[in-house]
Amino acid sequence: MSLCLILCRCDCKSEYKVDEERSSKYPFVGALCMNGGDVDNSYTTKSLLQKRVLSITNPILVKNTEEMLTNLDFPKCIKVADLGCSSGQNTFLAMSEIVNTINVLCQKWNQSRPEIDCCLNDLPTNDFNTTFKFITFFNKKLTSNGSCFVSGVPGSFYSRLFPRKSLHFIYSIYSIHFLSKVPDGLEKNKMSVYITSSSPLSEYKAYLNQFKRDFTTFLRMRSEEMVHNGRMVLTLIGRNTLDNPLYRDCCHCWTLLSNSLRDLVFEVYSFKMPFYDPNEEEVKEIIRNEGSFQINDLEMHEFDLGHSKEKCSLQSHKAKAGQKEASCIRAVTETMLVAHFGDDIIDALFHKYAHHVSQHASCRVKTSVTLIVSLVRK
Amino acid sequence: MSLCLILCRCDCKSEYKVDEERSSKYPFVGALCMNGGDVDNSYTTKSLLQKRVLSITNPILVKNTEEMLTNLDFPKCIKVADLGCSSGQNTFLAMSEIVNTINVLCQKWNQSRPEIDCCLNDLPTNDFNTTFKFITFFNKKLTSNGSCFVSGVPGSFYSRLFPRKSLHFIYSIYSIHFLSKVPDGLEKNKMSVYITSSSPLSEYKAYLNQFKRDFTTFLRMRSEEMVHNGRMVLTLIGRNTLDNPLYRDCCHCWTLLSNSLRDLVFEVYSFKMPFYDPNEEEVKEIIRNEGSFQINDLEMHEFDLGHSKEKCSLQSHKAKAGQKEASCIRAVTETMLVAHFGDDIIDALFHKYAHHVSQHASCRVKTSVTLIVSLVRK
Repeated sequence: MSLCLILCRCDCKSEYKVDEERSSKYPFVGALCMNGGDVDNSYTTKSLLQKRVLSITNPILVKNTEEMLTNLDFPKCIKVADLGCSSGQNTFLAMSEIVNTINVLCQKWNQSRPEIDCCLNDLPTNDFNTTFKFITFFNKKLTSNGSCFVSGVPGSFYSRLFPRKSLHFIYSIYSIHFLSKVPDGLEKNKMSVYITSSSPLSEYKAYLNQFKRDFTTFLRMRSEEMVHNGRMVLTLIGRNTLDNPLYRDCCHCWTLLSNSLRDLVFEVYSFKMPFYDPNEEEVKEIIRNEGSFQINDLEMHEFDLGHSKEKCSLQSHKAKAGQKEASCIRAVTETMLVAHFGDDIIDALFHKYAHHVSQHASCRVKTSVTLIVSLVRK
Repeated sequence: MSLCLILCRCDCKSEYKVDEERSSKYPFVGALCMNGGDVDNSYTTKSLLQKRVLSITNPILVKNTEEMLTNLDFPKCIKVADLGCSSGQNTFLAMSEIVNTINVLCQKWNQSRPEIDCCLNDLPTNDFNTTFKFITFFNKKLTSNGSCFVSGVPGSFYSRLFPRKSLHFIYSIYSIHFLSKVPDGLEKNKMSVYITSSSPLSEYKAYLNQFKRDFTTFLRMRSEEMVHNGRMVLTLIGRNTLDNPLYRDCCHCWTLLSNSLRDLVFEVYSFKMPFYDPNEEEVKEIIRNEGSFQINDLEMHEFDLGHSKEKCSLQSHKAKAGQKEASCIRAVTETMLVAHFGDDIIDALFHKYAHHVSQHASCRVKTSVTLIVSLVRK
């Protein structure tokens, strides 16, 4: 699959050795998947952040579902897809919102309830087994007994996943900021896992160009799969650089991860995040240039990584906030980090991470935001 | 899900105690799934039997795929479903056969290649993760680069799984002999896990009626999901009782399992197989009575459970045949048996099973057969 990490081998002279055997055995590790299962550090229990994100996405999901329904004159069968559904129950929270909106609107307009085909996509390495365990939970969340069919679609959303003109509604929550690969040309930077405010312009451009290529591919694939007037709602991590010339701040999650790694292994080696958080203008420009979609909504929300909003000077509160954020980031990155550094490092790393977060608990410079964009297939 | 086992608690006075806590914790265990993963006793490595079955099913799959294509005048998008795909690569062996047949025929008749939607169904407890690992294997088996989309559909095939009139081709290999539940009225029989030649008529009828209900439901659900002139190929274990009045024989797999269990626990308690192997006439009658499908092909093949065809009197050969069959049966039944008896018993049980098979190595009374039926949606 294309959404994999290029993990290069490298020398290391540190307490925590890079797992060279592992790196050579898996030169292209398809490691970009969330922790599976439903136990302690798994994505499903640690994705409270995503639930919060869902609460800000919901109004746009509902509005666009309603508009899609009326614009398409209440289709008899509606195919909905979650791209990057991950493992666990969260995919069903958004999906049940959409299905319930459809059923309520059909009742209101005296239309017969459609059959709804709910497609859950993620990489083939995703833990679909755990997701499928929550189908009963999904059915309980549905307010009516209309026909609803669930399927799992394993594959990269940077390739075609569905037949031509088959999808009526697509959503993707906190997925498309993940790139198909780490950009080339970052070999010299051994101090951070992502661009920082002190990165050279060439590194910033390497990331931006990779995002442009990937997001354009994403839009082109979806434009082939969607019906005319179909809707797409995308929620992703972005940057608010419009009022703030600093495009990386001290408590960006990858800055904190770089600091934590350096505490343990002195260098981050060739480990880089296949990630880009675009600003609003970058997103708009790529959509305009690709040309298949009209922007319907575009919202920017504060990005709140798991810790409570109230700033508190109590040391214990700061520590707790640090642990929460560390859990979130661990759930998302553990598979990637283990593929590169082995698993000996992980507990200590996120202990450090929690500490760094707590040091920045009262920091006000936050450039990370959540972007929500809704699109109409022209 | 409906395809679950009713596992009742019972008293036990034996060396291997029935796991009462387990039985009471999971009064309705959704235990009817094959061993997952891809290690030793897993279904994926031990399903050589199914590969052999596939080789006898293939000609009918190919023939019906071709007839479907021409009857439906080469649809632009073709949706194919494997019902009861199980875990591992086997589902892709049949699926690649169908996809390749479609592509070859399109080339032959100078038609553009359709997009093909490949839907893999099994119960939500099935190990879809392992199946999805074989997508690369699937793509390698395809002879052309047409668009092919894979999805996993978790659910019981005794309920609706797909939208109305969406499927062009369905196949199911060695699945529909599994019932949605163990029939009622078998409580008195504590000596065998299935009907035997000495079972009272009432037990035989309980099983037959359950199969009638289940298979009728299966046909009705599929008739709603399939397009007019769509095709369905079903391969299942059946009984050849037309020339043989004995409807259970000494080396039927469930007779051997009953014997092995009794060797260890004296009684089989309330453990019963949710299984029925119909004869040809029973299958034909249910299809006729349901009324949505026309029978296109109906074949009966020798049932060969893993051991070589050549009868051999060498003790070592007999033992090897026993072990092979024991592995096959273990892969299919282990989850169910563990849910009822706990896992302490399993190794010893299949050791006994292998021994019983070897005792019947030269036995000629084989009533088990493989039935293959192809149907056209009227």
